[in-house]
Amino acid sequence: MKIPRHIGIIPDGNRRWAEGKGLSKEKGYDQGIDPGLLLFKLCQKVGVKEVTYYGFTADNTKRPTEQRKAFTEACINAVNILSKENASLLVVGNTKSPMFPEELMPYTERKVFGNGGIKINFLVNYSWKWDLYQLKKSTSLSNNINNQIQSNDISRVDLIIRWGGRRRLSGFLPVQSIYSDFFVVDDYWPDFNQEHFYDALNWYNTQDITLGG
Amino acid sequence: MKIPRHIGIIPDGNRRWAEGKGLSKEKGYDQGIDPGLLLFKLCQKVGVKEVTYYGFTADNTKRPTEQRKAFTEACINAVNILSKENASLLVVGNTKSPMFPEELMPYTERKVFGNGGIKINFLVNYSWKWDLYQLKKSTSLSNNINNQIQSNDISRVDLIIRWGGRRRLSGFLPVQSIYSDFFVVDDYWPDFNQEHFYDALNWYNTQDITLGG
Repeated sequence: MKIPRHIGIIPDGNRRWAEGKGLSKEKGYDQGIDPGLLLFKLCQKVGVKEVTYYGFTADNTKRPTEQRKAFTEACINAVNILSKENASLLVVGNTKSPMFPEELMPYTERKVFGNGGIKINFLVNYSWKWDLYQLKKSTSLSNNINNQIQSNDISRVDLIIRWGGRRRLSGFLPVQSIYSDFFVVDDYWPDFNQEHFYDALNWYNTQDITLGG
Repeated sequence: MKIPRHIGIIPDGNRRWAEGKGLSKEKGYDQGIDPGLLLFKLCQKVGVKEVTYYGFTADNTKRPTEQRKAFTEACINAVNILSKENASLLVVGNTKSPMFPEELMPYTERKVFGNGGIKINFLVNYSWKWDLYQLKKSTSLSNNINNQIQSNDISRVDLIIRWGGRRRLSGFLPVQSIYSDFFVVDDYWPDFNQEHFYDALNWYNTQDITLGG
């Protein structure tokens, strides 16, 4: 079976999940933490080499304060939990904005935890504009664009899995997603179960990989 | 009903269509010309303001010569046919490569045909790297990225429709596709029928539009 080297995760639907339970929207975010760890362990098990989580974006921070606080808190917790695993972990996002949580500053240089292993990238206060704008500042003469953007330590994504039914990228790593295969799970992220992951892998296994050729 | 302002078209599956008919792969491309015109007329009818066709990419030109010749010829014909309609037409792609067909040079500045109307963009020898690399050369101080790429005359895409079952962007306008909703038709492009288009519109009508917010 063909296993994607790098999986991108768009964990959408937390607010809709909360509403469906009669809770206020911001209550959905901390229900997304356990799924994140479960998913990491599944990636480890099947031999995925790199996984990127779409934590929150600069766009997202325009939401009501209680939501912003809740998703920021959930991301801090998720990163702390992942740092207990065997992995090499990096948080990527615009640290020069007050929306970037100080608690995650120590993770903005890649660090090996435990015995190392999978590369984990966690996007926090990420913005595609911030990512690409770096190209304007690059003085490199190389035509390798991937090396000259802010997220240059994140490699090409083979498979993107999005929970919550939306069929769009919403600004997720535009350069690394150029050739990604895109699998959508209709269930909300807090309702994650491992069948979603295996469905995505089985589907990916049937796709040809041409990289635009 | 909510009509997308700008639709992107990825007309994939021409080669698989030809193989399915027992023809050699390159025979599929000219079967994609009539669908292109039909689709244009449907866009006109429902009030779409802009449509972008993914003609061929720099990546595609690495295919066998007879295929390259056939898809280039099909794009030349398609553009000539569209120039008989009421529209404002622009061909976008890397003209500095020998893979760019001379016949389409006259279309590389936007021109109004007939009574004008819909903006048509037709990507020919397009490359996402070529598109983004322009950012490196921009001396503008603006942080509006869309204005500083090669395809700056093409606006944000609301809905992308891809024929041929693949669920990926394959390098299609990465900046304009950041927030696009993505609809996949399993049928091959030469088997286009208007139900595909209406299915895509009906689905789009049920999506919320948040632009990442």
